[in-house]
Amino acid sequence: MSAGVRSAGEFEEARLAWVYLSRVVQGPCAPLSALIASVGVREAARAVREYELPEALRGPVAARRESDSAAADLEMMERLGGRVITPDDAEWPEWRMLGLNQLDTERDRDGAVPLVLWARGPLSLQTASERAVAVVGSRCSSGYGAQVANEISADLAGRGWTIVSGAAFGIDAAAHRAALAVGGATVAVLACGVDRPYPAQHDRLIAAIAETGLVLSEYPPGTTAQKHRFLARNRLIATLGDGVLVVEAGSRSGARNTVKWARRLGRPAMACPGPVGSAASVGCHRMIREGEALLVTRAEDVIDEAGPLRLPLGDNPTDPAAHLRGAEAEVYAALPAIGSRLPRDLALQSGLDLPTVRAILPALELAELVGCDADGWFRITTRRST
Amino acid sequence: MSAGVRSAGEFEEARLAWVYLSRVVQGPCAPLSALIASVGVREAARAVREYELPEALRGPVAARRESDSAAADLEMMERLGGRVITPDDAEWPEWRMLGLNQLDTERDRDGAVPLVLWARGPLSLQTASERAVAVVGSRCSSGYGAQVANEISADLAGRGWTIVSGAAFGIDAAAHRAALAVGGATVAVLACGVDRPYPAQHDRLIAAIAETGLVLSEYPPGTTAQKHRFLARNRLIATLGDGVLVVEAGSRSGARNTVKWARRLGRPAMACPGPVGSAASVGCHRMIREGEALLVTRAEDVIDEAGPLRLPLGDNPTDPAAHLRGAEAEVYAALPAIGSRLPRDLALQSGLDLPTVRAILPALELAELVGCDADGWFRITTRRST
Repeated sequence: MSAGVRSAGEFEEARLAWVYLSRVVQGPCAPLSALIASVGVREAARAVREYELPEALRGPVAARRESDSAAADLEMMERLGGRVITPDDAEWPEWRMLGLNQLDTERDRDGAVPLVLWARGPLSLQTASERAVAVVGSRCSSGYGAQVANEISADLAGRGWTIVSGAAFGIDAAAHRAALAVGGATVAVLACGVDRPYPAQHDRLIAAIAETGLVLSEYPPGTTAQKHRFLARNRLIATLGDGVLVVEAGSRSGARNTVKWARRLGRPAMACPGPVGSAASVGCHRMIREGEALLVTRAEDVIDEAGPLRLPLGDNPTDPAAHLRGAEAEVYAALPAIGSRLPRDLALQSGLDLPTVRAILPALELAELVGCDADGWFRITTRRST
Repeated sequence: MSAGVRSAGEFEEARLAWVYLSRVVQGPCAPLSALIASVGVREAARAVREYELPEALRGPVAARRESDSAAADLEMMERLGGRVITPDDAEWPEWRMLGLNQLDTERDRDGAVPLVLWARGPLSLQTASERAVAVVGSRCSSGYGAQVANEISADLAGRGWTIVSGAAFGIDAAAHRAALAVGGATVAVLACGVDRPYPAQHDRLIAAIAETGLVLSEYPPGTTAQKHRFLARNRLIATLGDGVLVVEAGSRSGARNTVKWARRLGRPAMACPGPVGSAASVGCHRMIREGEALLVTRAEDVIDEAGPLRLPLGDNPTDPAAHLRGAEAEVYAALPAIGSRLPRDLALQSGLDLPTVRAILPALELAELVGCDADGWFRITTRRST
């Protein structure tokens, strides 16, 4: 979404436009994202202000379009020691958002890319999300679950992986605390404004995360936590990691929603087993049994799934894709030698289904075999010397 | 392997031949099974006695072919309150042995059908193996594992499922005891003669099983337990059930061998999860993770996997196979309208791989859509009135 060379004034104007729009729609808004993609953020902000909008956008902006507190919001964030991360900022993890960009927002109504991320904490979002795993699970975790979340998260964080979670009771808190305890990186994604920790009993935990890590929200300061916001928040947790690990989940746990997002985004979904009689593991067992999540028991398993493809180098230096097998090879073969192709067309070309194609592309990207631009996915043809 | 109408004298002669041959080869012997299939058991016994044998059979029979204790063995079994079950007996579960019959014994060297089964206990083997699940696992089970084995086995046995296991320490014993405790049916398959309980500390358990259930071995009385016999024994455990459940398995548990047999025989393999840190669950977690076994947590899950296909009746009364989908439909379609076909040819015809075809046929058989005779598998065309 970069808009070419801009002057400092234009950049500032764009920032105010992002912040204004974020407060107007409060959360993901696919029609607004579409408008911004088509006319740019400043023109989109003007159109919202003047209500010159397609029908689909009139409803979402009607309530708050007339008040613009962008400048005040930016000042307030500065007072809080925070910032607003927009798609124009260097730390915006554009490659992480690709999965969201490719979702069919007609079907996944909350699947839009966030407009901005309100942030507190010294960590760069770009760096934090480079090697990251979401660790989530039941709020009513057992002692067993808390211990497993703690051990795996500490191990991952100690190896340089960022632990992304939601700062909730139970597994989330255990995962954040384990990362903090080993001096690792951790990111809390909230379903409310970053100025009002939720749950309130976790104000110290969230403050501790903001001290060394990152507390994020797509909702402007003052927004309260509400049910639909937790669901939209879960998509960001899944978006920011290389995979989602559920440590414990009861039969109706929200963790299953995060796993659903992971699968839509082509991220591996993993779950820990537990004692068969434990109500806190029922959801994990069901996801494993039904093939929705892969059984993992330790950090190594998680890295095996979420880590970059291991490339056997030197096999065939003239063809970097020579080691690919099965569906990966088929997706790669479906890419044109020159130019880009959309996942939908790759699915048609390869005969694979769309979710499979979407799951494979990010893995090929991590292996530096393919890249992505506005027109779709393309082969990376620069030969690396080996 | 029935040999048409026989006189009582011929029947007795055949029985003595089976028992003689069982003691000569002591365990599975594919070349001998092939000879029996080709010339009949009495002629095979004569050929072994007179050493008129193909090269492959000379070695296996050389050591013991000159002593014939068949009559004494039968007398001894009677004194023990036991019996010898031969393929000529009504309680021989011929349909259970089909899987073994179809194995490629070149590859699966111990994959032959047992010559006879030495038995103690009042239960008919035919009845016992009608609805049966093998419950096996680590000898060094945890308290957790013993409890899970106990709960699931008691539940299954209480619903009329026979619990088949190996009478070993740990999970095996817990499974047998649970079945006994609810007055259910249980079968212990030993890797030694049925006259010498192994392990010796389980003499009371094995005696209790022989009182209401069945203690089986393909090894003649006096045979001691040896490593290769446990592996061959595991194939019988897998053969006699509709599926194999592993409750706990360490990283090098023999239970994995039983699972391997289950998969070769087309039986579902299942495993219980446990705490991630438990060494006694490492093998189960690995089998689930690698897709070798399906995660199950309770008797209902086991029945879902091992139970007969549920037929939605009345959908299309003129075509009993109308409800089949996917690979099942393809295998059924590959069967000729009249006549039989071997699994190998069904694989060629359907384009499915051989293990898949082998896994599907028993399910179709349970659904009474196909049957099997010496020439292979055929469609059951008798219309059932619905």
